[in-house]
Amino acid sequence: MTTEERKTKVAFQGERGAFSETAAVLMLGDSIETEPRPTFESLFAAIDNRSSDLILAPVENTLAGTVHRSYELLIESGLHIIAECIIQIEHHLIGCENATLDSIRIVESHPVALAQCERFFIANPQIERRASNDTAASVRRVVENKDSKTAAIASKRAADIYEGKILLGNIEDHTENYTRFFLLSNEQVVEPNADKISLVIRLAHKPGALYQALKPFAEKEINLLKIESSPIKGTPWEYRFYLDLQSHIESEEMIWALREIREHTTEIKILGCYKSAQTKFRTADIEG
Amino acid sequence: MTTEERKTKVAFQGERGAFSETAAVLMLGDSIETEPRPTFESLFAAIDNRSSDLILAPVENTLAGTVHRSYELLIESGLHIIAECIIQIEHHLIGCENATLDSIRIVESHPVALAQCERFFIANPQIERRASNDTAASVRRVVENKDSKTAAIASKRAADIYEGKILLGNIEDHTENYTRFFLLSNEQVVEPNADKISLVIRLAHKPGALYQALKPFAEKEINLLKIESSPIKGTPWEYRFYLDLQSHIESEEMIWALREIREHTTEIKILGCYKSAQTKFRTADIEG
Repeated sequence: MTTEERKTKVAFQGERGAFSETAAVLMLGDSIETEPRPTFESLFAAIDNRSSDLILAPVENTLAGTVHRSYELLIESGLHIIAECIIQIEHHLIGCENATLDSIRIVESHPVALAQCERFFIANPQIERRASNDTAASVRRVVENKDSKTAAIASKRAADIYEGKILLGNIEDHTENYTRFFLLSNEQVVEPNADKISLVIRLAHKPGALYQALKPFAEKEINLLKIESSPIKGTPWEYRFYLDLQSHIESEEMIWALREIREHTTEIKILGCYKSAQTKFRTADIEG
Repeated sequence: MTTEERKTKVAFQGERGAFSETAAVLMLGDSIETEPRPTFESLFAAIDNRSSDLILAPVENTLAGTVHRSYELLIESGLHIIAECIIQIEHHLIGCENATLDSIRIVESHPVALAQCERFFIANPQIERRASNDTAASVRRVVENKDSKTAAIASKRAADIYEGKILLGNIEDHTENYTRFFLLSNEQVVEPNADKISLVIRLAHKPGALYQALKPFAEKEINLLKIESSPIKGTPWEYRFYLDLQSHIESEEMIWALREIREHTTEIKILGCYKSAQTKFRTADIEG
């Protein structure tokens, strides 16, 4: 045993300054060390190869929908959801030191970020869009190249980290742009105040199967917060269902409902039981 | 009145050779003229400004999930689904005439296509990925630039149209990669053999609301083919539900169920009633 203090290592997908890293810092504060991973596959491998203690994975965006790849890898990995976090996505136009809004002719960012700033591009037809793999990496390149004609779209925190200059703030079309993240662990930890359960079920393909499966939750007045039929690989247009329910896994109602639902499902997997996010963080809430 | 023959104009999102255009041709054959549109917004505007007769919009991919933007614009537009189409997405590595697999150092494509060819990039670490806005436009650029170091990832049809050379075929990680499209019209047309209904409902936010709403369909043994809770803009984490049901809109059961469900919904909108896709087209089925 050692008394040496070691910060919890949390892996995220993307480069330093990515929205995922910002979410990790907003959620867990300074007690953690963040670890960038280039792809979702390498993100989920980070716990297996013991380079990280926890993983933060995006699972849903209010505009772009469910991140199916995250759910798939979560199911395959056998990891457990121990917390969720919701952050507001705010996009800023970021240039190098010498840039001004008038000097910009090219804006690069991830295509999803570019598409979420449609109004800015319509108002500025002189500016060409260029797709990139990563919002934060775009800021890094723009600052490194010192080219006053090129800017990036990314978070304020990415501007802080790479010392980019915010040329125009909050250029996103919709302010109601939130991303939800799961914090994942090798160990199943359920806090006494947990009030939300995520699970995945697979149903026999017959009329009324979902109706029957939802019955136990309706009978016990357990609130359904999310439902989504998700294609199963190898069997196109057959579905798993992702459910979020408002309850504690050890409540009497839930124990009863889970026992009942087993009769109506061919597969059931509890992904986690955790405290629902009370605060929606703004990415402007922290410094880089 | 004129006897002049005029081909039906079908708008799609992307450049010539995009998967959406291929889907339109596979579905409707040579009787149509396809019309490229740069964005989803301009796609849905194509009927309003009478430049197109029909629209083909992607709504779901087996790997990437539901295309929420298509559903949103469909709901806003008031257009009707008159048919669906499912095509298999096959990715090919495409270069200019002088290129060989060994000469390639950069591969550009849409980030979704790049991500769906992960195994190819792992096997070829000498190759750098570059994101672009469009798979077909990447082929066009690669062929125009005659640079034997750069290739694109796109469909066989894009290679045919821009006279690119296929350096390696079917580099997609998962063969079970299908995209589903809706054919949309200003006019509500329901064929007698239609067997699928898409609708969107909004529910009071209380326990059991969805269970109650599904009851009429379960009672009449109407099969539920898809369900998805979708965030409503302006009210994060409150949901609309998209439902696909196996039935005809004028069947006795469906008329009864739709009357029953109105009591349990705060909003209901029929998006269309159409014949379910029987064939899953392969993009290799046609020449460009």
